[in-house]
Amino acid sequence: MGLLLSQIESPADLKRLSDEQLNQLTQEIRDELVRIMSIRPAHFASNLGVVELCLALHLTFDFSRDRLIWDTGHQIYPQKLITGRYRQFSSIRTKGGLMGYPNPNESIYDLFMTGHAGSSVSTVSGLKAADDLMGQSERKAVAVIGDGAFVSGVVYEAINNISGMDQNVLVILNDNKMSICPRTGGLARYLDKTRMTEFYQGSKKTISKVLHTIPYIGEKAQHALEHLRDGMKGAILREGMLFEEMGFRYFGPVDGHDLNNLRTILADLKNQKGPLLLHVFTNKGEGVPEASADPVKFHTPPVITKLGPERTVLELKAGGARAYTDSMSDAIHQAMVADEKVAILTAAMCQGNKLEKVRESFPTRFFDVGICESHAVAFAGGMAKAGMKPIVDIYSTFLQRAFDQIFQEVALQNLPVVFTMDRAGLTGPDGPTHHGVFDIPYMRLFPNMICMAPGDETEVEPMLQFALQQKSPTSIRYPKTNLEKVERPKAPIRLGKAETVLEGVDGTFVAFGAIMPSCYQAVLKLRAEGMQIGLINARFVKPLDSETILGALKHTKFILTVEEGTLEGGFGSAVLEAANRANLDSRKIIRVGLPDRFIDHAERHELLAELGLDVEGLCKSMRKANEQFTESHTELTESLR
Amino acid sequence: MGLLLSQIESPADLKRLSDEQLNQLTQEIRDELVRIMSIRPAHFASNLGVVELCLALHLTFDFSRDRLIWDTGHQIYPQKLITGRYRQFSSIRTKGGLMGYPNPNESIYDLFMTGHAGSSVSTVSGLKAADDLMGQSERKAVAVIGDGAFVSGVVYEAINNISGMDQNVLVILNDNKMSICPRTGGLARYLDKTRMTEFYQGSKKTISKVLHTIPYIGEKAQHALEHLRDGMKGAILREGMLFEEMGFRYFGPVDGHDLNNLRTILADLKNQKGPLLLHVFTNKGEGVPEASADPVKFHTPPVITKLGPERTVLELKAGGARAYTDSMSDAIHQAMVADEKVAILTAAMCQGNKLEKVRESFPTRFFDVGICESHAVAFAGGMAKAGMKPIVDIYSTFLQRAFDQIFQEVALQNLPVVFTMDRAGLTGPDGPTHHGVFDIPYMRLFPNMICMAPGDETEVEPMLQFALQQKSPTSIRYPKTNLEKVERPKAPIRLGKAETVLEGVDGTFVAFGAIMPSCYQAVLKLRAEGMQIGLINARFVKPLDSETILGALKHTKFILTVEEGTLEGGFGSAVLEAANRANLDSRKIIRVGLPDRFIDHAERHELLAELGLDVEGLCKSMRKANEQFTESHTELTESLR
Repeated sequence: MGLLLSQIESPADLKRLSDEQLNQLTQEIRDELVRIMSIRPAHFASNLGVVELCLALHLTFDFSRDRLIWDTGHQIYPQKLITGRYRQFSSIRTKGGLMGYPNPNESIYDLFMTGHAGSSVSTVSGLKAADDLMGQSERKAVAVIGDGAFVSGVVYEAINNISGMDQNVLVILNDNKMSICPRTGGLARYLDKTRMTEFYQGSKKTISKVLHTIPYIGEKAQHALEHLRDGMKGAILREGMLFEEMGFRYFGPVDGHDLNNLRTILADLKNQKGPLLLHVFTNKGEGVPEASADPVKFHTPPVITKLGPERTVLELKAGGARAYTDSMSDAIHQAMVADEKVAILTAAMCQGNKLEKVRESFPTRFFDVGICESHAVAFAGGMAKAGMKPIVDIYSTFLQRAFDQIFQEVALQNLPVVFTMDRAGLTGPDGPTHHGVFDIPYMRLFPNMICMAPGDETEVEPMLQFALQQKSPTSIRYPKTNLEKVERPKAPIRLGKAETVLEGVDGTFVAFGAIMPSCYQAVLKLRAEGMQIGLINARFVKPLDSETILGALKHTKFILTVEEGTLEGGFGSAVLEAANRANLDSRKIIRVGLPDRFIDHAERHELLAELGLDVEGLCKSMRKANEQFTESHTELTESLR
Repeated sequence: MGLLLSQIESPADLKRLSDEQLNQLTQEIRDELVRIMSIRPAHFASNLGVVELCLALHLTFDFSRDRLIWDTGHQIYPQKLITGRYRQFSSIRTKGGLMGYPNPNESIYDLFMTGHAGSSVSTVSGLKAADDLMGQSERKAVAVIGDGAFVSGVVYEAINNISGMDQNVLVILNDNKMSICPRTGGLARYLDKTRMTEFYQGSKKTISKVLHTIPYIGEKAQHALEHLRDGMKGAILREGMLFEEMGFRYFGPVDGHDLNNLRTILADLKNQKGPLLLHVFTNKGEGVPEASADPVKFHTPPVITKLGPERTVLELKAGGARAYTDSMSDAIHQAMVADEKVAILTAAMCQGNKLEKVRESFPTRFFDVGICESHAVAFAGGMAKAGMKPIVDIYSTFLQRAFDQIFQEVALQNLPVVFTMDRAGLTGPDGPTHHGVFDIPYMRLFPNMICMAPGDETEVEPMLQFALQQKSPTSIRYPKTNLEKVERPKAPIRLGKAETVLEGVDGTFVAFGAIMPSCYQAVLKLRAEGMQIGLINARFVKPLDSETILGALKHTKFILTVEEGTLEGGFGSAVLEAANRANLDSRKIIRVGLPDRFIDHAERHELLAELGLDVEGLCKSMRKANEQFTESHTELTESLR
């Protein structure tokens, strides 16, 4: 295995290979992708789909100078394998190993760290504009973007601007009919239509070329020719009309697994001017029958535990314990059973948010808007205004795309939209583009917004119920991890009320969110060591329960706030603000959370340990604080003597 | 004047008017718009342009039940005049008076408070989806959106989703060729082409109807008919192909000042199914020759001081004092002279940001991307990666649209993009959609970001220079107000260093941004009263100068942080965080800034006074704090005795 791969140190080495060897290389790359999947979960079907496209691109261009961005970025594996990272490939998605997304720190071929969809066309346009201004216009610029990402609004903004500038940019639409979940919307239908046409083999270029190169021939003749061209388009180029109307020359559709034809076409397009769109059909999961048959399941499937001949997947690792996502999905289902005003919106994350059952049960109240977070939130604002109770179910990090719609269409109008922010906190192997570490400050800064986080699994459903009863916008954040539970008497959710889980005199944990059970474990450990530590489950960061939290500040030596989010303006800062308003000494407040830097990929538990947010880390912080405050207390007592 | 207007209490009253009277009403509305402009600055040309469209809509639909959203919202004046607000109209844009944008608190006809462009199509789609689910599908849904707003990405997301749902939504493209500044991009060119065609008079509808209502007739025949339809489109409906391809039925172009024809067409469209796009040409500034000739100047011109017959504008109020915007624009020009790597980006705010001279001097390094903030920032990321020094010059509030691109394409990649955030703070009569009060917390939460604000006019240019020398992203916020200056020795800008303007022992103002001169005035007043107050010009919120600021905390009785931004996670909170890290007593920190609510429209100085941020308010806060701390100091001294 990897006979050829091991000889490829850079894309230049590809050019020495024969067609047959290149064919063998596609097999080796797919074998390698399968091998990784037998070790750990990773992005799978999308990478299987772009093997030929990746090779064709690197065979045609020189991306040590030319510009290439893969959008969304999770289909970067083949590129990693042919740009000197084959030997490190086993480390992918592990702590200290290769990132599962493009990473400029790994290779000059990875220009941008990408993970949020759709920005590639803008970025490539910016690269091209700068190269042109700096006298390097010979550098080519290419964006490869999936049809799922293509519906994101920023793509349209980029297309409009590239067209306006008549920039030499090649956009490759990698059309695999998927947006993680099956794609939706008018564009999807539009692209589906093109599936009925024959593959493009490079022949239409002549017509297009002729029509584009006719010199000035007087307005009337020009007009007539344009008519002719439009007629020809109508008859021949019709499938690309949408893009042509937007000012791009359309080429395609092209078979994305026909390496030779891809090379021919790319070689031709490489030297053409103006905005170009190449429409490539790929098969998400190509080369692995099961992945090809069910690309949703095989987007990031569990580890392959049994493999048959010819890359047949015989068995995947059985599903693990229930996660917060499951619990929220159930709570949403329950809420939709109970109240027919409740509707659910997802931005192509039906699978990630485990909403399949909700979709089946309530097809009319289920809205998958595609990767269009901005639209999702404004749409939800409209629904709420008309009296429905929309739940916007989007990962914390992707909801950033809708920051301004949260502001204008929801918070400013004070409409009861519920935001369920999955993947809030450290998400693990996906790394910094996927960690949801900014939502506490970015949500709490909006007037009218109620911001919550369940302390453990028992609070997910009650918190959603509570949210649906509010007349203001609400947000609920919860992490990508298995459910945990702290046994205790039930205490109903009340607006702006925290829950005192354990009283303590030495110090008190004030936990915001699902880090609470870890704090509880830490309390048990510390109590065994003789420290009487308390625990408050904050539940709300806005409105903050100043009474309970600052009460603890008065009655115990100190409080230690804990959050799985950035400390810049986060939960701990909200507590500092409350203490400041109440004129209390904030030296008795210690804040534990995430530092002011982007956090690498690794398993979530590894990151938590590294950042002092696991049980041991929390104990350490508490012990240290306790020592400090015992000393200072002694000092103070002494100074008063 | 206003004979008819004074009889219109609601749109129902319109229906009693004859054609002649309606024509007279359009004159009365335009007269009223001119009258307001003779009192105070307001949105002018855009409102002149939609008079007939507004009447036609309200004559055709019943928007007490049907749904209508005007996008961007500044063209809402005619609607205000015919929905029971004529008598209050003189109060528009004044404290306590009518808002210059739609306001649900004023009227049921204003559904959403809008001011940021492009979300209307999504919101209307959400309203329609909810109405349909709630058994009120007879309610019609209409969005009116300008061609300037139409390029915003969220519109494309909405169009794609409406098309996918085949929703009964009417989108009216109000095409006036302007995006405040002249529009740019491929769509602009596309729309320009349609200007060459004849006006639509309702005749094409038949063809379209026939083709849409043919029942199922077998795949081959269907296919043939589709071909035919496309051929016809090519020949007849060609100008709307872009929208047709996106799944909308296109109607137009239509003369937006022909009230009768508008009514005919709207009456027809009202009962058609599916997504419809009506393309209306209007003349921004219609009815006022000067406004029509220069709609950029007359978007929100100065007050009209001399008026001739037939609404001829003979004189506008002369320009006032120089503002921060002027200073920044000059600084940008200077930077572009000095360094050809500097480029400037604006999102249709060339005029607002006073970049006309920059555009003229450096056409190749000037990029107006239209109302596409997300694209602007990702594009800037690309430019910076390729070695240019892009300045993204966008209002604080509109930059919210690019929150996620600031995260992924700039901060995460640690690229040296400079954000000049104009209109940071309270902007005055435009109100809550335009105040820029969230940028301190939303910018400082990103790792790698350097966040600054000039203390007065002397720091604008040096701060931009400093920003352009950094290897990290930087942001500079400054308000919509005239330049002010505090005479003092020059102190160069250094990373994370504040400037001690005045030493004081009683208390110290720590001002972030252009509120500094007011603090200086307050200090002078307070010194006259015997209080030795100091003043620190913070310059940076990130990195914060803990040494200087916390130093003051140690050496004076207390510090009072001052910011023109929300207190939730803002500058004062950053100081609290720093004090907390340094284990200092934060009771000695008092935070002055904006409260946690949306702030209404009024003159900026009125708002500052109301919120305690004028010189008198600052003096008050300082006096109060000084009393408090003198007492507590006495108490403490006594308790230690």
